[in-house]
Parts: sequence; C-alpha cells; structure tokens
Amino acid sequence: MDDKNVLLDHGSGGKIAHSMLTKMILPLFDNPLLAKMDDSAVLDLSGIRVSFSTDSYVVDPIFFPGGNIGDLAVNGTVNDISMCGGDPLYISVALILEEGFAKAELSRILESMGEAAKRAGVMVVTGDTKVLPRGKVDKIFINTSGVGIIPEGINLSGSNASPGDKVIVSGTIADHGITILSSREGLGISPGVQSDSAPLNGMVKSILNAVPYGTVHVLRDPTRGGVATTLNEIASQSNVTIRIKEEAIPVKDAVRGTCELLGFDPLYVANEGKLLAIVSPEVAEDVLRVVRSHESGRDASVIGEVYSIEDASCLVSLSGANYSKGSVILETVIGGARVVDMLTGEQLPRIC
Amino acid sequence: MDDKNVLLDHGSGGKIAHSMLTKMILPLFDNPLLAKMDDSAVLDLSGIRVSFSTDSYVVDPIFFPGGNIGDLAVNGTVNDISMCGGDPLYISVALILEEGFAKAELSRILESMGEAAKRAGVMVVTGDTKVLPRGKVDKIFINTSGVGIIPEGINLSGSNASPGDKVIVSGTIADHGITILSSREGLGISPGVQSDSAPLNGMVKSILNAVPYGTVHVLRDPTRGGVATTLNEIASQSNVTIRIKEEAIPVKDAVRGTCELLGFDPLYVANEGKLLAIVSPEVAEDVLRVVRSHESGRDASVIGEVYSIEDASCLVSLSGANYSKGSVILETVIGGARVVDMLTGEQLPRIC
Repeated sequence: MDDKNVLLDHGSGGKIAHSMLTKMILPLFDNPLLAKMDDSAVLDLSGIRVSFSTDSYVVDPIFFPGGNIGDLAVNGTVNDISMCGGDPLYISVALILEEGFAKAELSRILESMGEAAKRAGVMVVTGDTKVLPRGKVDKIFINTSGVGIIPEGINLSGSNASPGDKVIVSGTIADHGITILSSREGLGISPGVQSDSAPLNGMVKSILNAVPYGTVHVLRDPTRGGVATTLNEIASQSNVTIRIKEEAIPVKDAVRGTCELLGFDPLYVANEGKLLAIVSPEVAEDVLRVVRSHESGRDASVIGEVYSIEDASCLVSLSGANYSKGSVILETVIGGARVVDMLTGEQLPRIC
Repeated sequence: MDDKNVLLDHGSGGKIAHSMLTKMILPLFDNPLLAKMDDSAVLDLSGIRVSFSTDSYVVDPIFFPGGNIGDLAVNGTVNDISMCGGDPLYISVALILEEGFAKAELSRILESMGEAAKRAGVMVVTGDTKVLPRGKVDKIFINTSGVGIIPEGINLSGSNASPGDKVIVSGTIADHGITILSSREGLGISPGVQSDSAPLNGMVKSILNAVPYGTVHVLRDPTRGGVATTLNEIASQSNVTIRIKEEAIPVKDAVRGTCELLGFDPLYVANEGKLLAIVSPEVAEDVLRVVRSHESGRDASVIGEVYSIEDASCLVSLSGANYSKGSVILETVIGGARVVDMLTGEQLPRIC
C-alpha cells in the first residue's frame, strides 16, 4: 500500500480515515474538545453550551433524485449540530466554484439551500465565494459550518452508550448512497428510491422533549461509512459491545436489490436523513413512537442492544475469529452471528 | 460578457463578486445578519454576542515565502473574527484533498496550522476530510470557520465610519499578493518580500483596550481586492467619502517595483496580516502608537480621512468624471486627485 500519499480511503469516514485523524491530525491540534471526536464540538461560550460543526460537500453528481449538493450541505450541518443535542441556529456557506459553471445551476443550488435553511429553521449568516480556473475544481464544492445552543441538562456523546441500552434507527438505511451511486453510474433507479437527505433537528427536539433528561445517551447520523461504521465508533468510544439484528434493520427492497447486484452491504452505505438513537431500555418504546410520528421516521425500528464488554451473552452463535472486545455483532436472518467491522477502505467516493 | 456562466471575476472580492452576492445570494438567504456584509456575522447566542466567520482557501502555490495554505487559513479566519471586535476562540478545519497528494506536504501544512492556532491562541475543535480522485481538485483546499466572543460595549462595523474619522493602515500593503504572484509565475522575489500572513487578534485587543469604547468605528482586513476595495465597501456601507494620500501609504520598494513592472496598483493587491482602522480623530495618535508597538504594525500610518458626502472640501484637485457620492479619492504624490474605484475584474485569482 502506498503510505506516502493521500488515498481515496483517507476520506472514507472508515478505518483508514480514522487512522489519519488519530495519527496525523489529533496530535497537532491536541485539545480535549477535538479529541472527543463527536459530530460536533461542544463549546463553552461564557457559560452557554454551543455545538459547532463543519463539513465540506463534494458529492458527484451535484443533482440527484431527492436533492442536490445545496440542500445536502444545509441538512448535513444541521444534523451534525443536532446530534450533540444542539438546536441549530446559524450556518455559514462557503462556495468553491469552477470557472464556466452555469449560473442557472448555481441558482438552483442556492435556492435549494435557502429552502433547506427555511425548513430547518436556521439562518445563513455569513459566507465566502472562490472561483477557480477550469479544471482546478470539479464544478462546485460547498462547505457549511454552523452553531446551535445545547439546552441545559442535555448531555449526548458517542461515549455515553451503556449496557442494556436499546439501539434505534429512524428509518430505512442506504437510500442516499445507493441513489448517488446509481445516478453517477447511470444505472436505472427504481421509482421510490431517492436520497433521504433531510433535516433531523425537529425529530431530535421531540425525542429530547418526550423522555426524561439522561435517558437518551447517544444520537448519531450514520453518514459516510453507514450504520456499521457509526456503531463501531460508538462501541469504541463507549467501550461496549453492540449486537444488532439483521431482520430488524429496515431496508427498501429496491435498495437491497441494488446492493446485492453491486456487492454492497447496506450497513456500510451512507444515509443523510437518518439517525441512530441509543437510549435507556425503559424509554425505547416512547422514543420509537416519537420518531415514527415524524415523516422521515415512519420506518423506525429497534435494531439492537448494548452489552458490557464482559458480558458473553452477546456472543451467542458468533462464528469467525475477528471478535474483539468493543465489537459490533450482527445476528443474521438465518440465525448465525458475525462481527461487523468498521469500513476499511473507501466504498463510494464523493457520496456527500 | 458571458453572463450565463460563473467567471473568475465572481470570486475576486471586487465589483463583480459584489454584484453576484447582492443579486443572487442575499435575496435567497434574506436576513439582517447576512445583509450587513461585514467580515463576520455577529450572532446573539442567549445574550452572548458571538462573531462567526468562514473562508475557503485555494491559494496557488500552496507553499510560498512567509507561509503556506495552512497558516494562511488559520490567520484568515482569526482575522475575520477579530475585525468585528471578537476574541477568536475556536475554529474548524475542513480539508478537501486530491488523491495522491504527498502526506509529507500535508503534514507540513497541518503543522503550520497547529503553530498558527497556538500563536493566535485559538483551539481547532472540529473538522472534516474529503479526498477526491486525481484531477477533481487541485492538491488541497482548506475551509476554516470560527467563533469568538465580542466583549460588551464593542460595536464595530463597516457602516460606522463618520465624517472627521482618521483612516489608519497597520503596515506596508500588497506584500501577500505580490509574493503569491511572484512565486506562482516563477519571478525572482527580492529578499525581504514575503507574505504578511499573520494573526491580528492581539493587535485588535490592544487597540480596543487602549482607547475609550465607541472611538474605534471600523476595523477591516484588506484581503482580496486590497485597500482600495475595502475602503470602497466601507464608504458605501457608511455612506461617506474617504480621501487618502498616496504618499502616506506604506509600500515596500521591492513590492512597488514589482507592481510597476507588472502593471499592478498596490492599492488593489491582497494583504493577509494588515488591518485598516477608522477611528475618531482624537484617538488616532493613540491607536497609531499601539499598532506600532506590535511587530506587524511597525510601519503603520494615518493614510486618510472620512468626509460627509455633502462636504466638497474632499474634492480638491479632483480630475476625471467618475466621481459619485460615497467614493474613495486618492490624492496622488504629484498633487492631483482621482477616484479609486472598487476592483472590477479578477486581478489575481487564487491569491488566498
């Protein structure tokens, strides 16, 4: 493997990206806020807790069923802020454009951003535009950053999952990744399959309002690397084992079909409008009901449970040799069980 | 002119960029914070005033005398936050990398970012990395966004310039732009000419601490489009005329020489570690003394004065027909005067 140069894998959100982050980046900017590695940083601004997040969007194609790079960029940052329990308020938009890019396309993208901001209830308050000569950037890249206030008493982090907790996914998985891949490669997309790109701040707010503070432990949106990678990150941050049931995981038939055809595992495919909630067992049904009351949460399901790493009961039927403490284990539909590792390489570049 | 496609000029920071911002972008994200068009937005987070800013860096070459794309990106956002009077605290770093980019170069850039953050006293708290296939992005682009707290009583804005105010520049102009241009084109660079990239938050803090609140009206860093464009923006935002004296504007001899050779006006060339301060006349000497006490402010100078648009006394010796109310007027070394307009097209692409 070429270890002197940056590889596509370094941007995957998976294992190799994780290694670059921990080996090259964390030591240079050493501080406890960055080291938490959640979707947003939680800042203290004169006693106000603020969640602060950034993401660059380089998706290809820039227009796809269910959205475009513009609303994706707004929803993505809204969601990252929300996953820390923050109420997203203000975002920035920085455009990098290729000389010759059609103004009509730029207008459509900006309009979508305006609509997405309105839908999520956030204000675009500052921005930047750079234009590069032809060939130096592929059409348009968008960075969005944003801030939101975290209400008192809310404390969400990937490191808060506890034995006994239930794992909830807010709907069907892999819709976004399969839509992008199919659009890019010119594969026919089945009607009804489209990106799930959507703001999740409304859903998060109603979850947090519905159950006692402290019973919702982790919220995460499984974007790059999919549900498998996100659950692995949580298992590692919280030092627990997570066991999920394949039959409980909602996947649209058409999406499952495309995955099988192309050899993708939907567990590793990106989502842009879904969340994973890890909650105390006594509130799992309440959370599920609240999530299902939202349009994008109708297919929500309890997909698994959190175990102590000392607890052998999560290892039932486990085959294969790659189990280590802090793993994610999948109970398959045929009754076996296997370890679901973090994404290793880059499965789908330019997915967001 | 091609009006259907994005032009290099749209990223210039000048007149055409300004027109895209006001015609295409502002109406879509219509809100009073964005409409102020200062370097940062000033947010109210539960009663705390926060300045929030974003910029993408696409400079070519990525390494140049006096810095590289990494420290430039940190200093740039630190400075934008500072120009609203904010004390920069936290920044985000989002990398877009080209597959095959040398890890050794990435390390040098990240190390410079770490050092720049330390020098400015800010923490890098969150980030993002995307990697694109070869040819889809030119080496590395960096977005930095950031937040800072604005102390009570501080109220700086491009719209605050008042008749009688003095205009101070904190040092020699055009160093950054001429360095980038010379490096990119392989021109010989005179020893001593290098980018002025530097954090200005320390200087801003000492200015604001040295004089009574309310006497410092505007702080701006004249980056893309240079001193001329920034002063035009201020004149327009504040509805005043600004008259500056060519002989008072500090320019290094070698920089002036290169400008003359290549046909550039140093007033339009980018700076990355200089500020313009517009202050009440009674504190001008105090501000000048404070600025000069900083290493990057040793060549600071009072370069001009603000006039009411009704005041004809600023029009002495003015020739040419392009004067309109709210202009910037330059008194030349030979005693004439001319209107200094906003930058029209893109003078130097990829300058930051």
